[in-house]
Amino acid sequence: MTRIDGRKENELRPVHIVTNYLKHPEGSALIEQGDTKIICTASIDDRVPPFMRNTGKGWITAEYAMLPRATEQRNIRESAKGKISGRTMEIQRLIGRALRAVVDLSVIGEKTIWIDCDVIQADGGTRTASITAAYVALALALNKLYEENKMEKFPLTDFLAATSVGIMEEHGTILDLNYSEDSQADVDMNVVMTGSDRFVEIQGTGEESTFSHEQLLELLELAKGGIQQLIQIQREALGPIAEKIGQ
Amino acid sequence: MTRIDGRKENELRPVHIVTNYLKHPEGSALIEQGDTKIICTASIDDRVPPFMRNTGKGWITAEYAMLPRATEQRNIRESAKGKISGRTMEIQRLIGRALRAVVDLSVIGEKTIWIDCDVIQADGGTRTASITAAYVALALALNKLYEENKMEKFPLTDFLAATSVGIMEEHGTILDLNYSEDSQADVDMNVVMTGSDRFVEIQGTGEESTFSHEQLLELLELAKGGIQQLIQIQREALGPIAEKIGQ
Amino acid sequence: MTRIDGRKENELRPVHIVTNYLKHPEGSALIEQGDTKIICTASIDDRVPPFMRNTGKGWITAEYAMLPRATEQRNIRESAKGKISGRTMEIQRLIGRALRAVVDLSVIGEKTIWIDCDVIQADGGTRTASITAAYVALALALNKLYEENKMEKFPLTDFLAATSVGIMEEHGTILDLNYSEDSQADVDMNVVMTGSDRFVEIQGTGEESTFSHEQLLELLELAKGGIQQLIQIQREALGPIAEKIGQ
Amino acid sequence: MTRIDGRKENELRPVHIVTNYLKHPEGSALIEQGDTKIICTASIDDRVPPFMRNTGKGWITAEYAMLPRATEQRNIRESAKGKISGRTMEIQRLIGRALRAVVDLSVIGEKTIWIDCDVIQADGGTRTASITAAYVALALALNKLYEENKMEKFPLTDFLAATSVGIMEEHGTILDLNYSEDSQADVDMNVVMTGSDRFVEIQGTGEESTFSHEQLLELLELAKGGIQQLIQIQREALGPIAEKIGQ
Amino acid sequence: MTRIDGRKENELRPVHIVTNYLKHPEGSALIEQGDTKIICTASIDDRVPPFMRNTGKGWITAEYAMLPRATEQRNIRESAKGKISGRTMEIQRLIGRALRAVVDLSVIGEKTIWIDCDVIQADGGTRTASITAAYVALALALNKLYEENKMEKFPLTDFLAATSVGIMEEHGTILDLNYSEDSQADVDMNVVMTGSDRFVEIQGTGEESTFSHEQLLELLELAKGGIQQLIQIQREALGPIAEKIGQ
Amino acid sequence: MTRIDGRKENELRPVHIVTNYLKHPEGSALIEQGDTKIICTASIDDRVPPFMRNTGKGWITAEYAMLPRATEQRNIRESAKGKISGRTMEIQRLIGRALRAVVDLSVIGEKTIWIDCDVIQADGGTRTASITAAYVALALALNKLYEENKMEKFPLTDFLAATSVGIMEEHGTILDLNYSEDSQADVDMNVVMTGSDRFVEIQGTGEESTFSHEQLLELLELAKGGIQQLIQIQREALGPIAEKIGQ
Repeated sequence: MTRIDGRKENELRPVHIVTNYLKHPEGSALIEQGDTKIICTASIDDRVPPFMRNTGKGWITAEYAMLPRATEQRNIRESAKGKISGRTMEIQRLIGRALRAVVDLSVIGEKTIWIDCDVIQADGGTRTASITAAYVALALALNKLYEENKMEKFPLTDFLAATSVGIMEEHGTILDLNYSEDSQADVDMNVVMTGSDRFVEIQGTGEESTFSHEQLLELLELAKGGIQQLIQIQREALGPIAEKIGQ
Repeated sequence: MTRIDGRKENELRPVHIVTNYLKHPEGSALIEQGDTKIICTASIDDRVPPFMRNTGKGWITAEYAMLPRATEQRNIRESAKGKISGRTMEIQRLIGRALRAVVDLSVIGEKTIWIDCDVIQADGGTRTASITAAYVALALALNKLYEENKMEKFPLTDFLAATSVGIMEEHGTILDLNYSEDSQADVDMNVVMTGSDRFVEIQGTGEESTFSHEQLLELLELAKGGIQQLIQIQREALGPIAEKIGQ
Repeated sequence: MTRIDGRKENELRPVHIVTNYLKHPEGSALIEQGDTKIICTASIDDRVPPFMRNTGKGWITAEYAMLPRATEQRNIRESAKGKISGRTMEIQRLIGRALRAVVDLSVIGEKTIWIDCDVIQADGGTRTASITAAYVALALALNKLYEENKMEKFPLTDFLAATSVGIMEEHGTILDLNYSEDSQADVDMNVVMTGSDRFVEIQGTGEESTFSHEQLLELLELAKGGIQQLIQIQREALGPIAEKIGQ
Repeated sequence: MTRIDGRKENELRPVHIVTNYLKHPEGSALIEQGDTKIICTASIDDRVPPFMRNTGKGWITAEYAMLPRATEQRNIRESAKGKISGRTMEIQRLIGRALRAVVDLSVIGEKTIWIDCDVIQADGGTRTASITAAYVALALALNKLYEENKMEKFPLTDFLAATSVGIMEEHGTILDLNYSEDSQADVDMNVVMTGSDRFVEIQGTGEESTFSHEQLLELLELAKGGIQQLIQIQREALGPIAEKIGQ
Repeated sequence: MTRIDGRKENELRPVHIVTNYLKHPEGSALIEQGDTKIICTASIDDRVPPFMRNTGKGWITAEYAMLPRATEQRNIRESAKGKISGRTMEIQRLIGRALRAVVDLSVIGEKTIWIDCDVIQADGGTRTASITAAYVALALALNKLYEENKMEKFPLTDFLAATSVGIMEEHGTILDLNYSEDSQADVDMNVVMTGSDRFVEIQGTGEESTFSHEQLLELLELAKGGIQQLIQIQREALGPIAEKIGQ
Repeated sequence: MTRIDGRKENELRPVHIVTNYLKHPEGSALIEQGDTKIICTASIDDRVPPFMRNTGKGWITAEYAMLPRATEQRNIRESAKGKISGRTMEIQRLIGRALRAVVDLSVIGEKTIWIDCDVIQADGGTRTASITAAYVALALALNKLYEENKMEKFPLTDFLAATSVGIMEEHGTILDLNYSEDSQADVDMNVVMTGSDRFVEIQGTGEESTFSHEQLLELLELAKGGIQQLIQIQREALGPIAEKIGQ
């Protein structure tokens, strides 16, 4: 049985990444994954947060937001509400944590890289697409640092991408859920993996539902296939910079 | 003496407007005016604010924000600060007020149109370009209402666009300042006008400076010329919808 | 046709300014303009905001508030709401900007003058009356600095006052609107001018309305006449200090 | 040994009360007690807070604030800080509680009286002077209600005033402390009493100090004398309305 | 190699659960797991949040906090900071989501169960111990509802408990990390499982680290063993109520 | 006539104090007074607030909170509301002020002692029981400082405890009100006294009621008796440390 948009269970939506989409940031990428569109930027700041001072190491932190009309119904801006939702906080903590796993922070030195992921249009999978595109923006910004400072080592130790997988009653396990699938899925899992097939983060949730050990293994297998394809797309977007990663 | 980007004193930057840029909103427009890029959306909400209830009339309200890295230096998000700056409030009040001047609110009935202007990339003139593009998004959304509800009258009574003008020591009065010009100008003025050359809003400010009656008249003349060109661009972007305006 | 309070179109309400109304501030003034009563104070702080440090120049910043029962209906305090309204922010930014236009900030040195305008009773025109009275409080505080520090130059370069003008259907253009007139006016304009008839700020707005070039010129002419009278009243209130201004 | 301003230990500062100081509120009073100046207003609201609904009884609530430059050093506005200090909350809870003790809330019916006490100039004793003047503003507002609604009973059951008393090493127990005395006192006590010499509130505090039973009795005796004088001043300010109180 | 507190790799810390620890809540439990001590309560509220109205189903929501001195260093209270941290939000969302997976919300009807987890003393694993104890408090509260309303079905469909597992360089995979272990672990994973060995939530994170598929399988095996023991302890704490679960 | 829980008018509820209840804080105490249960901790911080810097003296500050389900009805957390209530602020200011009266702050040196009082279960008298138990936690923490720093003088100058007293129509004056009594009392008074029978704080309030001089004297007599008993219980809880107090 084909999915609502005609995809197979193990098929990603079409993915396009535009590098250097904006003129001001040190690195930026626009990702379109199906109807999900996100602008990710990486900004270099010559200070680190207090807990990193005098460690000789850098830091990477992320923020995530949606335009009010990225969604079917207009959302109230978090600036107007005066506070950030729990969902937003979870996502931005996840993005920062994931990226830090493939960066050698001691190579960067005491700098902070601010990652901003702003969802222009949302159709499911915004947190995983944010990670995939933020990785590209980060690589571009780090390459600038690397070139300008004539660093000895490129600070990225591996590739990194993310995908959602899930379980729907009528389809079983599926890859890269769009919004309509996500809102009906029994189990929703986000997986972040490196270019060498190692896990950085697994977040699997049965909302009013549960899943078995066998289902878990199937989900992880699907995720691995999707992430390998996404890393190939990142590689193409980055061109010669890709060669420096993990060296 | 030519301006920093080679323009003449009375020359606008190149302006492009993409209509229906996003899939969810009732109306949307992406404007590029030089390096300034803004996404404007118009969302229809079937409720009005408390002070408009039982008046039989609609309301138009606007919000404005910048992506953190729309600018040369990264800005802290207003959602992270937990409050909206005075500058943001001034701009969103201005946008809402300006648009309401050319809408027959009694034709709309008790609905609110939410205008969202999100600056993707900033290079001066973001508040005036927001008004110019928000007008287009609004026209698209109102056309949807007009068609769906088979209204007898199109709710827009006139065209509306905005521009900045200013005074710089080395150039005298100039039209459509970019960021570099704006930060050096002695006098900065924003003008909102209709398609029939009437003023909706004039905000002229000498920051640590003043200006004479003669200079004011020159500034207004420049603004009028720029706004007439902007309205021509709106007209082209809107196509057949443009014919309904002011009928 | 006479106005609701019997004035002519080009007539100000009676204006009284009491200097040094309070004992603690370096400068203070109580203004009564018709039934509008405002206490303005100027406080000298030996620090400047971060963006002015090491520039050798001073800064002037303003805050504006209303007592809860300054108005016909009681307002909720902004401290109780925990945030400042857009209207308040616009007004306090306007007051600070206007005053800075006639102060030689390099003469003051790295100090901040805090202007506080607290409306005790409101009957229209509170932002313009605030500017007129804040100018007097500022002159008193700067005179104290001038005398104590034996400055070579008096820091005020010119006089400065403000008025509202507007358009009402039954009266045409009118000067110095009271609350009742303001709430019915089609066009509302605030004008800030110097003692040498130069503009510092023009803010003209047609709320759900527009105005022509000819109407604009009439409004500016009325404003100029009113401001000249207000400056004469400031001159009398300041006595011998007035002689030092612009020297 | 005479006090810093020449008063005797049991002497109040000069007290003046101006009734109906403002035009909008239902009741208002300006009190000057030495150099302390406070504007108190009473506003009638035709709703009660949720916990009083359907009880048939009214409510009285108070807010208190200082102008930024009421004091020697400028205070940051609580609206700018976005929160109300503990000191302000304590004072406004005290004022409301004290006034409610002499009002027959069932006579008022389901209305709220909002008391606003805004300190224009502070020189000690602002919370007690607020109570004394708020009582007058309240009496004026309740008289308006009484007359308009032709109530059978006047809602005030007694007079009410407040004073501070304290202990200073060089003076022993003293009445009505000014700011300079207050900041040096070992013990500070605020007493609220009725016209029939009954206590409504006693708040005595030894800041880094303590006091004996004998000292307590002396303080209460001083307070009683001061409050009797303040009630006489209220009586004169209220004129014929005073006759209705407690009837 | 034994662990810092002498445990084996697959050994839980000693766990004690006191039921009905407080007198006011419908259900409450104090859990001590090693030096971690948490009070969990379940409160029944006869309303549901807006998004559940008219669905005929209930809702379960959780809040989590730490006493300021639950930890080695004193934490600033979130009430004093005026906002809730991202970590707190993540934890309370996790607790609520986990519990909802084993409750038949349609049996409860339109009621909300508020779960409060307050950490009295923290030594690692507070989020998983919160889930384990909150389940017990929830069972007690639901039993009260069940008995009082003579429900036909007990609303809990299965047991539910949670544990942390992790990877430390010197120990490999370990069960139930204390604070000292947690702060040195390369990989940290929280697992929530039911009494029938099904997953409800898996959150595995390599902070500046990654993990392989084989390590993941080992971690899950350890977690399963720990959770089975925790469920046995819950069973004993609940006594006869345990018999009703899943019937 | 006996009270609701069978006590005599001058009888305290049973009081138990557990010292060193938690492992992390420098001092801690759990107090149970009837059904009221509070955890108090004292934490030593090597900094003082700005206003105490370079004075050579220490500071003591207190925070107070309730678990959401400490009460019959669940309270919304103040962290979730984003602000602290007036009641909480009053209580924490009272606790800090009271304790400072019996500490020689110059002996401590420039350190802050943070007192945290967290109400686990509430049944009236939480602010006075907080003071009584916070005193014990403070003594434990100061003893640790005293021993570690080999201070010459023990910083506590006297014992300190607190109780509520009140007036109920059917009982007259009573000691140590539980929640049910407190909510019906006409007059409510909190008294803080030292071991040498001196007052530190008296806060007596007639909520919609008043009290005479004679009633005041009776209330103070009752309070004195209760406080002497509470100090005896503190003495036993502190054991040999009690001998150092006031030396």
